[in-house]
Amino acid sequence: MARAVRQEAIPSDPAFLSIQQASELLRRRKISPVELVNACLARIEQLNPWLNAFITVLPERARRGAHKAEREIARGRWRGPLHGIPIALKDNIWTRGIRTTAGAKILTDFVPREDADVTRRLAEAGAILLGKTNMHEFAYGITNNNPHFGATHNPWNLERITGGSSGGSAAAIASGMCFASPCTDTGGSIRIPSALCGIVGLKPTFGLVSVTGIVPLAPSLDHAGPIARTVTDACIVVDAVARDYPKEYARPDYRKLRRSLPRRIRLAWPEDYFFDRIDPEGCALIEAAAKVFRSLGARIEHVSMPRLGAALLPGTNDIALAEATHYHESQGYFPSRANDYGADVRLRLEQGTKVRALDYLRGLSMKAMAEGEFESTFKRADAIIAPVTAVSAPRIGQEEVEIAGEKETVRSALVRLNRPANFTGHPAISVPCGFTSDGLPVGMQLIGPRWSEACLLAIAQAYEEAAGWHAHHPQLV
Amino acid sequence: MARAVRQEAIPSDPAFLSIQQASELLRRRKISPVELVNACLARIEQLNPWLNAFITVLPERARRGAHKAEREIARGRWRGPLHGIPIALKDNIWTRGIRTTAGAKILTDFVPREDADVTRRLAEAGAILLGKTNMHEFAYGITNNNPHFGATHNPWNLERITGGSSGGSAAAIASGMCFASPCTDTGGSIRIPSALCGIVGLKPTFGLVSVTGIVPLAPSLDHAGPIARTVTDACIVVDAVARDYPKEYARPDYRKLRRSLPRRIRLAWPEDYFFDRIDPEGCALIEAAAKVFRSLGARIEHVSMPRLGAALLPGTNDIALAEATHYHESQGYFPSRANDYGADVRLRLEQGTKVRALDYLRGLSMKAMAEGEFESTFKRADAIIAPVTAVSAPRIGQEEVEIAGEKETVRSALVRLNRPANFTGHPAISVPCGFTSDGLPVGMQLIGPRWSEACLLAIAQAYEEAAGWHAHHPQLV
Repeated sequence: MARAVRQEAIPSDPAFLSIQQASELLRRRKISPVELVNACLARIEQLNPWLNAFITVLPERARRGAHKAEREIARGRWRGPLHGIPIALKDNIWTRGIRTTAGAKILTDFVPREDADVTRRLAEAGAILLGKTNMHEFAYGITNNNPHFGATHNPWNLERITGGSSGGSAAAIASGMCFASPCTDTGGSIRIPSALCGIVGLKPTFGLVSVTGIVPLAPSLDHAGPIARTVTDACIVVDAVARDYPKEYARPDYRKLRRSLPRRIRLAWPEDYFFDRIDPEGCALIEAAAKVFRSLGARIEHVSMPRLGAALLPGTNDIALAEATHYHESQGYFPSRANDYGADVRLRLEQGTKVRALDYLRGLSMKAMAEGEFESTFKRADAIIAPVTAVSAPRIGQEEVEIAGEKETVRSALVRLNRPANFTGHPAISVPCGFTSDGLPVGMQLIGPRWSEACLLAIAQAYEEAAGWHAHHPQLV
Repeated sequence: MARAVRQEAIPSDPAFLSIQQASELLRRRKISPVELVNACLARIEQLNPWLNAFITVLPERARRGAHKAEREIARGRWRGPLHGIPIALKDNIWTRGIRTTAGAKILTDFVPREDADVTRRLAEAGAILLGKTNMHEFAYGITNNNPHFGATHNPWNLERITGGSSGGSAAAIASGMCFASPCTDTGGSIRIPSALCGIVGLKPTFGLVSVTGIVPLAPSLDHAGPIARTVTDACIVVDAVARDYPKEYARPDYRKLRRSLPRRIRLAWPEDYFFDRIDPEGCALIEAAAKVFRSLGARIEHVSMPRLGAALLPGTNDIALAEATHYHESQGYFPSRANDYGADVRLRLEQGTKVRALDYLRGLSMKAMAEGEFESTFKRADAIIAPVTAVSAPRIGQEEVEIAGEKETVRSALVRLNRPANFTGHPAISVPCGFTSDGLPVGMQLIGPRWSEACLLAIAQAYEEAAGWHAHHPQLV
């Protein structure tokens, strides 16, 4: 059921086409991969000095790839919807022969001899790699204020953070420097920058996308998944990089997404965990999104998820702290090169040395509890509706926010609503749902049952189409 | 290819029949389950006051079961080789309606409302439960000196320990109180008492036998498996309690064991880890066993397993310490009831509170290293030949042993050669290989590739048959 691209819907600048639109034009040879790559490279040249989204740009390689894709498509060898589409990779994803810094001084000169599984799959799909994006050092933070490669700036307001750790990818996609980017998410690193930059980020089911060849943060919580400008585009990318689904589940297919939409969408609105201490303006936007869902015939049930309470965050925190320090120790980076880390990452690595095994194991055992809480909610709902972050993008350098008179660290305000799905491994998507009075984007989070990406994307797409926020792009040029 | 039981091979006391012999007689109605149960109960009555092998004996229940089995067999409903066979269960295996103490004061009055998976499978196979056996408290030690239920005594020398933690089962089987017993092995708890009591113990591949309904010790290392008097009997019991094998592997079948024997047995003799600091008398017995293997046409290659060195034991120790304390804490037993534990177990639970998460994770990461060392050895060998323990049974109360002039704790001398297979999850069997000049049994350990139980049992059976040590029983009566 491939929808015809309505010509009037195509933006004047090809860099803001959706992948779905662009691939249709590519397949019909109305546009060339070379044009797309050149449009993106032009925007990178113009905007990257302001946004600092890329650590490495690969213009020659990308142009060569574009010419090759052009020839293949001309010969009728169209590989699929990513063929000839310019993408970027977060810089913790290994690329053979191309340095992969993970945003770290320690890896500044690291050139992998292998591709990550994700890199290989994208190349097989015919996507064209434009470069490697800036990120929070070692993916171990959510501001994207990188002490070695500089902070990334939010395209909606250059004084604001993009969020992280995939902030470079989010800034690049939101500003039309590339079409999509596979990234990683250990505690919200895909969803947070997607929300703060007004685009779409999908953290799939744990294990669906291989993390082989990706610099790990905390293996029990590490996920890989796409950031893109539309839900359909996220679907196209996750389909390209995902492993096989268990037999009884449907693989998401962008041409058939509507068929995966439940006849009547049932959403759960969990008051106690996800809507506690949320910026009122952001909350109002989620409420407006709920209205849009109701207009689509959805039933929204207010539920309680009491077991996702206070215990969960310290639990996942101990897991993240211990596993991260263990990795850095096993590689010989920490403590021997402690001074080569930024202060925030060094501090967290030090904290990781102090976690007791009992606390680590207690954290893991809370997992079953949290999973149970989600599973019982999913008996009554196709997805949970929630905010992604408690606030919209803070200022670069800001350390605290105030929500309803209470102070909270930026870290906590951005992370706490994302951690649950990392912990339980359920798929979660961030979809734009409007703008604050300051003009900053806000993201809505939809969390679904394990392996339910097809349904989750269908629900997100139905909302996106009805709400239309994906048509908004920052005016930078 | 069921072998006919040679009448002359049948011992005069039915309590010393092998399961294979007894089941053949039962099937042909030459003997009744009631006779077998009565013979075992008589021996329990006579010997248990000396050996202290049982915590709970169930004479009425066993007799009822025997009558039922007798009727079923009489009606031609023979369930298989365990039908009507009297067995015992280690007291950490849940039995519905029958108290399950795990050898602990804390669980003295605990009566499970469910059977363990193992218990259920044995009942389905028609085995008759005689009682629950004494063990090291919470399976957390290897002497079987239980402070709440008394020490178990070795049937070969009442002043000696049985080894543990499945010492009650080993003493009961070696002395003819029962035919076999499913037990647990986290660091040697099946193989150590089997070796020290001169019988056969199989720790199968990790996960082959369900541990659901068994009081855990350290879930990453916990295995369940049988203790019995012969290799064939161990095969019969593991077949009855095992889950399905992965498709490409053969389930061990006692009637077809010989078919699983390699045309030419290839054994690896790893000098650096398994033969370092071994009591010379014990070592000589393993060398004699190697000669027996050579007489069977086996090739024995001396190999090196350097990565199984010093790092492995502290690694597995941290895992065991942390997971055990985590479990006891999660159940509310520790530290609130610290004084209800024996001193040794309490000390280890306290040590568990001090393990750092980093050390726990480092332990887990050594697993891959140890697995690699085994897998590369298994490319050249069907099994590894090794001792089970560095010394034969120490005296009850003895804390240190001396090996080649060096002192070592009893714990270390008994555990250190068993831990590797718990860590990597490879199947390992202890088979009797002779007696020291003090008349104490010595065990040989054979370790095989994952899921290779059929081949491992076949190799062990070929040795057992050639060597004949299984025909020796302690003279207690």
